[in-house]
Amino acid sequence: MAVRDVALGAISGAMLSLLWSQVLAVRLRTRRLRARATRGKVYLVGAGPGDPELLTLKAQRLLSSATVAVVDDLVSAEIHALIPADCEVLYVGKRGGKADSAKQPDIDALLVRKSREGHIVVRLKGGDPMVFGRVHSEIRALCRADCAFEVVPGISSALAAPSVVNIPITHKELSTSFVVISGHKPAEMDFATLAKVDTIVMLMATRTLGAICASLVEHGRERATPVALIHSGTNPDQVTLLGSLEDIADKASKRKYSPAIIVIGQVAKYGDLQAYVTETSDDPANTDV
Amino acid sequence: MAVRDVALGAISGAMLSLLWSQVLAVRLRTRRLRARATRGKVYLVGAGPGDPELLTLKAQRLLSSATVAVVDDLVSAEIHALIPADCEVLYVGKRGGKADSAKQPDIDALLVRKSREGHIVVRLKGGDPMVFGRVHSEIRALCRADCAFEVVPGISSALAAPSVVNIPITHKELSTSFVVISGHKPAEMDFATLAKVDTIVMLMATRTLGAICASLVEHGRERATPVALIHSGTNPDQVTLLGSLEDIADKASKRKYSPAIIVIGQVAKYGDLQAYVTETSDDPANTDV
Repeated sequence: MAVRDVALGAISGAMLSLLWSQVLAVRLRTRRLRARATRGKVYLVGAGPGDPELLTLKAQRLLSSATVAVVDDLVSAEIHALIPADCEVLYVGKRGGKADSAKQPDIDALLVRKSREGHIVVRLKGGDPMVFGRVHSEIRALCRADCAFEVVPGISSALAAPSVVNIPITHKELSTSFVVISGHKPAEMDFATLAKVDTIVMLMATRTLGAICASLVEHGRERATPVALIHSGTNPDQVTLLGSLEDIADKASKRKYSPAIIVIGQVAKYGDLQAYVTETSDDPANTDV
Repeated sequence: MAVRDVALGAISGAMLSLLWSQVLAVRLRTRRLRARATRGKVYLVGAGPGDPELLTLKAQRLLSSATVAVVDDLVSAEIHALIPADCEVLYVGKRGGKADSAKQPDIDALLVRKSREGHIVVRLKGGDPMVFGRVHSEIRALCRADCAFEVVPGISSALAAPSVVNIPITHKELSTSFVVISGHKPAEMDFATLAKVDTIVMLMATRTLGAICASLVEHGRERATPVALIHSGTNPDQVTLLGSLEDIADKASKRKYSPAIIVIGQVAKYGDLQAYVTETSDDPANTDV
């Protein structure tokens, strides 16, 4: 009898504890949901390459409903016009490591704070947030703080700049792959590998262009390989320079062409429309079906 | 006297002929301008990765004013809704080399014809027209026929699919470059080079995935290298599979995951949000400033 009582007691004790843990779990979930509902959400949004018409419909919609916009440099007046008047706008552009620039941990903390205050935060970055956008740190902070967030792709200037000057960065015969790379630290670049990729698309390489071209030639790339430099692609001040690995750095040294996208490879020749016109009909690309 | 007359005659003859060539040039230019004005224009427009909200404002505007839309497969009902009711819609999707598919030279000729008829033609392609879009042939035809055209970038699924599942394809410590490549012909791929790039983004590789992963391992890539497969990224039926070079092909074999974007490299681990949360604070990426 006593044994049965003890056994029953133990069972009901276990059941009670199970029930209690369930109650706790539901409570915790409710609290989280309530917190989420009031905490708002952070959208990590790509603003595209510059032309405000190359914003996505989604970026436009989110900007129109944002209560806080956290923006980098390089945001045009036309894009600004999409931000509601009563939306708080915070500038956090990092200007090449200048002392007064916002620090990444501060930006991370700002996003978490604004989200917890219940804001709809649009974190606006040039191009696509995941291409040289340093968004990893912001996502990590938001994940750790259990803040809701979403990445909204934008058009990367790495792809758009060649496109708008008619350079196909892939091409059935001439370019079956392309590599995208930042050129600001040539010492860390693997030129032996790079020299073997059909098309190289470089960002942040105007100051290092001479060294990079020389290294590519050293690693076996033809001196005559076409190179196109597209300055400020899709913007009103867009300029295209065409040349080769041998002369592009010299041509580019005559003016300040930063920011620029640099395309290295046979496809770069199409930056000149005449290249399309004068292709001979026995060009292998003409069998394109 | 006679000599002078002859000389004067020759001079005025030369002047007349110069004048006449000028008149001809002006006439030709006027005719060209008039022809251009009536011949319309072809816009080679990227429709983005699938989500209709990832269309650009420009694509939306052009679709709303198009008189002819020449569209590939993979265009959703929501994107269709942006085409005016009185716009002629022509489908020219090439379905994996099927016999009834449109042939590229026919598409080229169609664009030239419609342009010459004075239409505003939107040539709508999935993703970005210049990334595996085979637009080179269309541009060449338009150039040769002296038809006005413009390339309008769209968001490439190669970049968008990783983004929307929170994978940063560049990362300060783990991925300073990425290569984009089509995986449908592994025999033509340079695995020695590919194995050395931080991050590989592959399109059209679901059928060849096993062979590609094996070749990368053979060329020195760690078996445990994270791989993410994003099926139908940004669309309602989006699915993400996470694994490694060793097991992703096996995991993917259980269902039809085409089309898919495949990301190979350390950054692919972030397809699981837990990776952001559990990073230790001494992770080098934490020094991100």
